[in-house]
Amino acid sequence: MTLSAMRRIPKHIGIIPDGNRRWAEINGLTKEKGYAYGLKPGIRLYELCLELGVGELTFYGFTQDNTKRPSLQTAAFRKACVDAVSMLSGRDASLLVVGDTSSPSFPKELVPYTTRRVFGSGRIKVNFLVNYGWKWDLSFLQGQNSSSKKFSKGNLHNSLASSELSRIDLIIRWGGRRRLSGFLPVQTIYSDFYVVDDLWPDFREEHFYKGLHWYQSQDVTLGG
Amino acid sequence: MTLSAMRRIPKHIGIIPDGNRRWAEINGLTKEKGYAYGLKPGIRLYELCLELGVGELTFYGFTQDNTKRPSLQTAAFRKACVDAVSMLSGRDASLLVVGDTSSPSFPKELVPYTTRRVFGSGRIKVNFLVNYGWKWDLSFLQGQNSSSKKFSKGNLHNSLASSELSRIDLIIRWGGRRRLSGFLPVQTIYSDFYVVDDLWPDFREEHFYKGLHWYQSQDVTLGG
Repeated sequence: MTLSAMRRIPKHIGIIPDGNRRWAEINGLTKEKGYAYGLKPGIRLYELCLELGVGELTFYGFTQDNTKRPSLQTAAFRKACVDAVSMLSGRDASLLVVGDTSSPSFPKELVPYTTRRVFGSGRIKVNFLVNYGWKWDLSFLQGQNSSSKKFSKGNLHNSLASSELSRIDLIIRWGGRRRLSGFLPVQTIYSDFYVVDDLWPDFREEHFYKGLHWYQSQDVTLGG
Repeated sequence: MTLSAMRRIPKHIGIIPDGNRRWAEINGLTKEKGYAYGLKPGIRLYELCLELGVGELTFYGFTQDNTKRPSLQTAAFRKACVDAVSMLSGRDASLLVVGDTSSPSFPKELVPYTTRRVFGSGRIKVNFLVNYGWKWDLSFLQGQNSSSKKFSKGNLHNSLASSELSRIDLIIRWGGRRRLSGFLPVQTIYSDFYVVDDLWPDFREEHFYKGLHWYQSQDVTLGG
């Protein structure tokens, strides 16, 4: 099936780019060296989504859970996130970073992106979860955080820390694991979940196409 | 691999028994007829879990989303849930039904089970989600419901409507769909997700064993 034959284009794709550390070890590098090899795949994926007319793309950058890892690793994945945003800020994209800015784990360079910034025609929304935590996200429902202003009875989604991110149609996870690992629990409620066994730095366009082809055959019931 | 060779026994297994309506149609029945054929598989699965030493088992009965279906179907899946609980209430199990009892969609017969009831030695907890909704569950975080007494800053899980259900280690979904469809968003954050392509009424013990075998090779990182 060619791209042009695809009738169902997901409006919002979520990406879990897992396997950087395993890839580094397999390739004789220390674990933290893997993250830098995830940048090129991310940019290529962005280009493919732009070409295909996907409206929104969200990358699972790093989580508050992840920050418990050794500092060599946390420094490396923080840098990879900063670099990714920087590389896209020269392109055609509307960028948003979502995460807990109140902790030192949040890279200062990304603070300006916590309000959406449009580059070029901003044809595609590209979101990065950076120092994101599912507990942090859901805690806004409890009105513990600044968004308590947004507290709106009956509309959970609007009360989340991640309220600016829409429902996700298709999640693609690289690295073989079949779990969500805290990725936007509310937006992924009805998402179709496609797993690529290859590790993220081994990204090939074919992975993405296969995921989209599989998606063609899924129905949308929204739980109905 | 035999059951006795399995080192990692999930403490809590979640079951999404999907495909009853598709099964009915394939077998020349009207859609609503499929649900009754899901009872025997459910009982067998309970027996296997008891044998294996699984501590907790949760069945995704029906959701508030599901109640929008034609009344023939909603009556049929409500009856299947009542029958399933009734069949297990004579066995060795600690039963709990979790769902929104405030709506007429909730079967009256199951109200007594919304407080855990122990039968036999109660060796295994068996939970049924009945008229469950992810929005309903999470809305307790907003303190809109009676559980606002339970409101505890910093512990999301304890504030949920489903707070009595523990974290799920392994989800097995029958019927081929690769999505959670609103199944306990907080308890499934870190769950491994195994999909059986066969439809639920076509349950075979082998499906369960294969899921468990696959689970043996998964690590537990809890997002770390």
